[in-house]
Amino acid sequence: MKLIYLATGPMGRTEAGQAELARRRAYLQRHAARDTQVDITDIPSGPGSIESLYEEYLSIPETALRAHELQADGWNGILLGCYGDPGLGALREIVDIPVVGAGQATALMASALGRRYSVITVTDSVIGPLEETLRNSGGGDKLASVRAVNIPVLELRNDRELAIEATLGEARKAIAQDRADTLIVGCMSMGFLEIPEACQAELGLPFLNPARVQLKFLEAMLGAGLSHSKRAYMTPPKLAAGLASSPADLLHRQN
Amino acid sequence: MKLIYLATGPMGRTEAGQAELARRRAYLQRHAARDTQVDITDIPSGPGSIESLYEEYLSIPETALRAHELQADGWNGILLGCYGDPGLGALREIVDIPVVGAGQATALMASALGRRYSVITVTDSVIGPLEETLRNSGGGDKLASVRAVNIPVLELRNDRELAIEATLGEARKAIAQDRADTLIVGCMSMGFLEIPEACQAELGLPFLNPARVQLKFLEAMLGAGLSHSKRAYMTPPKLAAGLASSPADLLHRQN
Amino acid sequence: MKLIYLATGPMGRTEAGQAELARRRAYLQRHAARDTQVDITDIPSGPGSIESLYEEYLSIPETALRAHELQADGWNGILLGCYGDPGLGALREIVDIPVVGAGQATALMASALGRRYSVITVTDSVIGPLEETLRNSGGGDKLASVRAVNIPVLELRNDRELAIEATLGEARKAIAQDRADTLIVGCMSMGFLEIPEACQAELGLPFLNPARVQLKFLEAMLGAGLSHSKRAYMTPPKLAAGLASSPADLLHRQN
Amino acid sequence: MKLIYLATGPMGRTEAGQAELARRRAYLQRHAARDTQVDITDIPSGPGSIESLYEEYLSIPETALRAHELQADGWNGILLGCYGDPGLGALREIVDIPVVGAGQATALMASALGRRYSVITVTDSVIGPLEETLRNSGGGDKLASVRAVNIPVLELRNDRELAIEATLGEARKAIAQDRADTLIVGCMSMGFLEIPEACQAELGLPFLNPARVQLKFLEAMLGAGLSHSKRAYMTPPKLAAGLASSPADLLHRQN
Amino acid sequence: MKLIYLATGPMGRTEAGQAELARRRAYLQRHAARDTQVDITDIPSGPGSIESLYEEYLSIPETALRAHELQADGWNGILLGCYGDPGLGALREIVDIPVVGAGQATALMASALGRRYSVITVTDSVIGPLEETLRNSGGGDKLASVRAVNIPVLELRNDRELAIEATLGEARKAIAQDRADTLIVGCMSMGFLEIPEACQAELGLPFLNPARVQLKFLEAMLGAGLSHSKRAYMTPPKLAAGLASSPADLLHRQN
Amino acid sequence: MKLIYLATGPMGRTEAGQAELARRRAYLQRHAARDTQVDITDIPSGPGSIESLYEEYLSIPETALRAHELQADGWNGILLGCYGDPGLGALREIVDIPVVGAGQATALMASALGRRYSVITVTDSVIGPLEETLRNSGGGDKLASVRAVNIPVLELRNDRELAIEATLGEARKAIAQDRADTLIVGCMSMGFLEIPEACQAELGLPFLNPARVQLKFLEAMLGAGLSHSKRAYMTPPKLAAGLASSPADLLHRQN
Repeated sequence: MKLIYLATGPMGRTEAGQAELARRRAYLQRHAARDTQVDITDIPSGPGSIESLYEEYLSIPETALRAHELQADGWNGILLGCYGDPGLGALREIVDIPVVGAGQATALMASALGRRYSVITVTDSVIGPLEETLRNSGGGDKLASVRAVNIPVLELRNDRELAIEATLGEARKAIAQDRADTLIVGCMSMGFLEIPEACQAELGLPFLNPARVQLKFLEAMLGAGLSHSKRAYMTPPKLAAGLASSPADLLHRQN
Repeated sequence: MKLIYLATGPMGRTEAGQAELARRRAYLQRHAARDTQVDITDIPSGPGSIESLYEEYLSIPETALRAHELQADGWNGILLGCYGDPGLGALREIVDIPVVGAGQATALMASALGRRYSVITVTDSVIGPLEETLRNSGGGDKLASVRAVNIPVLELRNDRELAIEATLGEARKAIAQDRADTLIVGCMSMGFLEIPEACQAELGLPFLNPARVQLKFLEAMLGAGLSHSKRAYMTPPKLAAGLASSPADLLHRQN
Repeated sequence: MKLIYLATGPMGRTEAGQAELARRRAYLQRHAARDTQVDITDIPSGPGSIESLYEEYLSIPETALRAHELQADGWNGILLGCYGDPGLGALREIVDIPVVGAGQATALMASALGRRYSVITVTDSVIGPLEETLRNSGGGDKLASVRAVNIPVLELRNDRELAIEATLGEARKAIAQDRADTLIVGCMSMGFLEIPEACQAELGLPFLNPARVQLKFLEAMLGAGLSHSKRAYMTPPKLAAGLASSPADLLHRQN
Repeated sequence: MKLIYLATGPMGRTEAGQAELARRRAYLQRHAARDTQVDITDIPSGPGSIESLYEEYLSIPETALRAHELQADGWNGILLGCYGDPGLGALREIVDIPVVGAGQATALMASALGRRYSVITVTDSVIGPLEETLRNSGGGDKLASVRAVNIPVLELRNDRELAIEATLGEARKAIAQDRADTLIVGCMSMGFLEIPEACQAELGLPFLNPARVQLKFLEAMLGAGLSHSKRAYMTPPKLAAGLASSPADLLHRQN
Repeated sequence: MKLIYLATGPMGRTEAGQAELARRRAYLQRHAARDTQVDITDIPSGPGSIESLYEEYLSIPETALRAHELQADGWNGILLGCYGDPGLGALREIVDIPVVGAGQATALMASALGRRYSVITVTDSVIGPLEETLRNSGGGDKLASVRAVNIPVLELRNDRELAIEATLGEARKAIAQDRADTLIVGCMSMGFLEIPEACQAELGLPFLNPARVQLKFLEAMLGAGLSHSKRAYMTPPKLAAGLASSPADLLHRQN
Repeated sequence: MKLIYLATGPMGRTEAGQAELARRRAYLQRHAARDTQVDITDIPSGPGSIESLYEEYLSIPETALRAHELQADGWNGILLGCYGDPGLGALREIVDIPVVGAGQATALMASALGRRYSVITVTDSVIGPLEETLRNSGGGDKLASVRAVNIPVLELRNDRELAIEATLGEARKAIAQDRADTLIVGCMSMGFLEIPEACQAELGLPFLNPARVQLKFLEAMLGAGLSHSKRAYMTPPKLAAGLASSPADLLHRQN
C-alpha cells in the first residue's frame, strides 16, 4: 500500500525544512510494514509551526485541497501531519481514502494499553485546544492530563537533550500527580526527534510516538479493509449535489 | 457601544448578497439596545454558505484576519456570523475584544430557559459537527437533539413558508420524541428570516433566534465589563514573543 | 423595561439593612441599560443570610409568593437575590415573566468566557450545595472548583480589604491548582461589595460579579423576547386545573 | 429501634387524612424488622400534596423544624415522607440522626438490582424535578427514564384499579422503549396503595415500593451503625458558632 | 431469614483459616437482625487472597457453582465474600435469590451518607480494577478516590495497629486532598478486623465496614421483598432453553 | 512476528471444532501482514460458547494459564478469542507481551471511523455485559447501541444466510433509530463467518469484523513497539514478590 504523510505547513520552503521532510520520510519508511511505501508532501502556504488554534486553522484549507489531490493521485491513505488533528473531519468529508490523525490514533491506542494516559505537548497555549480535540476523538475517557514542556516547536531541534529532560520531567509529574500509566508526546516534532523512544526506557511505561503510532494505525485500518464512514463525515452537500465540481470550487471571492 | 457582525463568507460579492447584508444590519440594529450601534461586514473570500466542516474551515483564516482589523478599527465587540461558531477560539486568541458565537450563546441562553433544548438546523451534514461544537461550548449538558430540515442554506430564502413548515415539523418531533422544551434554529439564515419568531407563537415554547440572542449576549458581556479569558484563549506564542508582528505574519508561503 | 431585585430575606427589617437595600438598588441602576429601570424589594420573613441549604429553604416560600405579586404588579423580570438560586425552578413554575438566578447566569456567562471557571464563595458549608446547583444549571461542564474564604456573610462588610485579600488568595489557588481561567464570586454580598472588580485587575482574568452579570443576563433574555419554558417549569397542576386560585392557596394548615 | 415517618404536609387536618396516617403507620409497622417500632407524624402547615417544585418548597421549613424536634424527642431515625426527597440535605444539616429519602433510597437499591431502572410517577410536572434530584442522589447512573401516569396524587385513592392499569401501561413502555429492567413508583401515595406489589407479579421484574424500601434502607443504615456525614451536610455555621440556639432562630421577621 | 457468607477462596484449608471463618461468622451473626441466621462457607479451590484481577477470576467458577448449590439448599440470600464483587453478575445469572456484593453495597450506602466517598484498600494493584467495578456499580458518581495502604491481605492480621495507622493515614489524605466526606475500607479482611470501627471515632466521619454494610443491605433487600432483575441478569440461554441441566454442565473438557 | 489466536473454550474437542480452528487460522493468516505468522490454540476445558457472564468467567482461568505458557513459548502477541474480552485485564497482569481484545480493539477502531457505532451481537443476554465492558474499554464514548440477532452462537453456522439477514435487520434499526454510522459484529463466530463483509457492501457503511480488526490492531501495537502498561495492569503482588513462582501457583485447594 502507498501512504503519504501530509505536512500541515510549507515545510519545504527552506533547505532545512526539506532536510526535515526527508528525515521524516525515512523515519516513516523505516517503521512501515514490508509492503507499505511511504512518501511525504507539504502544502504551498500555511503556518511555520502550530502552537495555537489560529495556526491550526491557517493550515486547513490548503491541507484539505492537497488531500483531495493526493486521493486523485492514487494514494491509499493519508497521515495528517500535525498532532492536533487540524481539519481531520473536513478532510474526511472530501476524500474517501482513510485519513488518520495522530492525536486521535494515539488516544485510541493508549486506551488499549492502560487505564490513564497523559499527553506531554509543547506549549501551554495548546493544552485547552488539545483537551477539546481529544474529548471529541472517542478516546478521551482515559485522558488523565495534558502537560506542556513550554519549548517552542521550532526550538525543539536545537537541543534534543533539553527537550528529553523537559519531557521526562513533565512525564514524571503526570505519573505521580495525575496517575498516568501511559504517555504520549503531543507534537509531531517531538515524535520525529524520537523523544518517546528515549523516555520509554527511562520510565518503564509505554510512551507513544505519534508519528509511528499514526502510521501503524493507518496500516491497520487499511489492512482491515476500512475507511471512515461517509454517513459520519458527509460529502459537502453542494459537492454531493453536483453544484460544485471540486472542493476548490467551494471557495468564492469578492470581485 | 459599537458592535459588528462579521459574515463568514464574501456575501457582498453579489447584489443580492449586498441587499442581504443590509437587511441583516437592519434586523440587528432594530433589536439592539438604545446605545448600541451595529454594523456588518464580510470577508474577501470564503464559502458561499456553510453546510460542512470543510466550508467552516474555508471561512476561518480570512474571518480571523478581519476580526483582527476590526479590533484595530475600534469596534467594541464582534458577532461571529455563522451558527456553528467556526474558528471562535482562534478569533479569541488574536483579539482582546469579546467575540460571541451564536451557537455557544444560544446553547447557554437556552440552558437558562428550560431543561432540554433542541436545535433545528439546515442539513444532516452538520448535525455531527454541531453536536461536537455544542459539547465543547459549556452548554451541551441540556442538549436534547439536533435535527435538520434538509433545505440548503441558499434555498431557504426562496420559500420562507416552506422553511417555516419544515422547521415546525422537526420542532414538533423534537418536542414529542426528544422531550425538548426549548428550541433554537441552528442557522443564521434561518434566524434572519425570522423563522423562530414565526414558530414560537405556534408552539408556545421559547424558540431562540441565534441572530438576536447572540447580539443580546454580546451586549450583556460588554455591559458586565467582561471579555474572554486570555488564559483560556492564549495569544499565539510567536505573537506573544514578538516573533511575528501580526496574525497575518504567521502565514508563510513556499517560494 | 422594569426589573426588580428580590432579596431572599427580610433585609429591610433593620436600618442597616435598609441602607444596604438602597445601596444595592443604586449599584444595579448604575449598571443597567439606559432604558432599564431597577428597583429592589425583600420579603416579610426569612433567613438573615444564607450559608446552608436549610437557610435556602427558609427563604423560598415567601420569596415565591413575593415573585407572584411582583408579576401581578407589572414588573417585567425578576433578579433572584441569592447566588445559590434558591427556589429558582419553583418561581418559574408560578410566574411567566423571566426570573434569573445569579448562580446559573454567571455559570453560563463564564462558560462563554473561558474553558474552566472557579467560584469563590463564603463558607465551606455551601460548597457541596453549590456544586449540586451548578451541575443542574446547564453550565456545570466547565466548573473547575468551588472554594470558600470562610468569612460569614454578615461579616464581609466589616472588613472589605480582608474579604478582598481572602478572595484573591483562593482565586490564586483556583488558578494554580484547579487550572481556572475565569472566576466568579459565589455570594451576592461579595458581589455588591464589588470584590470581583477589585480582584479582576489584580489577576488579569475575567472575574464575574453575580449582581452585575445577573442583571445583564436578564436584560439579554428580555431583549431577545424570551422567558423560561413553561413546558420545562410547568404550572403546578392544581393551579393549572383551577383547583386553587393562587399559589398562596396551595398552603394548608391544621385546624 | 424507634423510627418515625414524617409526612411533608398537614395530612392529619382532615378525618380522611388521619385515617390515611393510621393506614400508613400500619403498613410500615407490618414491614418493619422485629425490633423496629415505627410511628408517623405530620406538620402543622404545608401543601395538600406535592406535584411541583413549588409545593416541595412549601413543605420544607416546617418539615425541617419537626425533624429537629423528633431528634430531641429521642427518635433514632427519620423517614422523609415524600418520594421527591424535599429538603433532604437541609434536614441532614440540622439533625445527626439518619434521615432517609425515598427517592434516593430506591434509586440506590434499584442500582443493586438491575442495570437500568425507570420511575413511574404521578404527573408530568414532576418529571424534570425528579430527574434533577436523582442525578444528585448518587444513583442516577442507572436511571433509564421517569414516566408519569398523569393522575393527580389526591385522586389516586379514588380508583386503585385505574392507577394500577395506568402504572402497568407506563411500566410496559419503560421496559420496551427505555430498556428498563427494574421499576420504582415515584410517589408515596402510589406506594402506600401497594401498587408496586400489584404490578410486580404481572411484570416479572423487581418493582420497588418507596415506602417499604425506604424503611428497610433506614434500618440497614442504623443497623450498620451509620448516619450521614456532617462533613457533607454541615451544621449551618450560625448554629455551629452558637449565634443561634436552634434552627427556628434562623428565621427572622420584619417588624 | 437464612443468609450465607460465601468466601471466595478455600479459606478452610488451614486451621488458621477455619478459625477465621468462625470468627467471621460470629461477627456477622452479632450484627445480624434478630430474625436473621447467618452461616459461612468457602469453596474447594481458589486463590489464597485476592490482590489482582487474575486472582478474582480464579475464584469465580467455584464460587458460582457453590452459589447455585446454596440456593438449592434453601438459603435466602448470599453475601459474596470479596470486596471487589468478583463474578457478581454471573452469580445473579444462575441464581434467583439475592446476591449482594460488598463493593456495590458500600458504594450505594455511602452515596446516601455524603457527597464524596473514598475507598481505602489493600494494594495499588487493585485500585484500577476497583475503579472500574465501582463505575459499573451504579454508585460510582460520588466516588472521590481509591487509595491503598499497600499491606498484603494476608499480613493485615499480623499487626492490626499498623493496619489501622496506615488506614488512618490514607483516610486523612482522602479527606484533605480528595475532599472525601465518607470512607469505606475496600477489603473484607480489613473489615473483619474492624478497622473502620477503630477509625470512625478518630475521624468523626462515617467509615463503612463492608462486612457489616453488605449484611444489612441484603437484609434490606430481602425485607423489601426484592431480588435482582432477571431481565438484567439473564439466565444463560443454554440453561434457559434446557440445553444444559445445570451451570456445571456448561463446562466442557477436551477428551 | 508470531501471533497466536487463543480460543476461550475447548473448541478442538470435536472434529467440527478442529475444522473450525483450522478455518479460523486460515482466515487470520490470509489477512495477516506479510511478515506475520498466525497460529491458533484453545484451552483444555471451558464453555462451549459464551452467551453470558457466567460462561465468560468459566473460560478465564485456563485462558490465562494458556496465555502465560504462550508467552513462555516465545509468541509475540496474543489475540484473545472472544468478542467480550473475558479476562483481558487479568491476562495483561500475568504476561508482558501484548494481548488484544476484539471488543476493545473494534470499539477503538470504530471511534476513528465515525461518530456513533453500534454493535450487533448474538443474544439479548450479553447486551448488558457488553455495554459494561465497552464503557470500561476507553472507546465507549461513541457507542450508540448494542443490539442482538438472538441466534445462539452454535447455530450461527447452520444458516449463514439467515444470520446475515438478521444482522442486516438489526443494523438497519441501529442506523435509523440509534443514528449509527459505523457497525461492528459483536461475536467472533459472526466475524469468522464473514458476516460483516457480506453486510458492508449492502449498507455502504464501515462494518467491522472483530477477527480481522483485532489482528490488525495487534500488528499495529507490536509494529509501534508497544505493549500494555504494567503500571496499569500490575503483576499480582504475590508473583511480583516471589511468593509464588507462577500464576498456576496462586490457585490453592482444600486438602
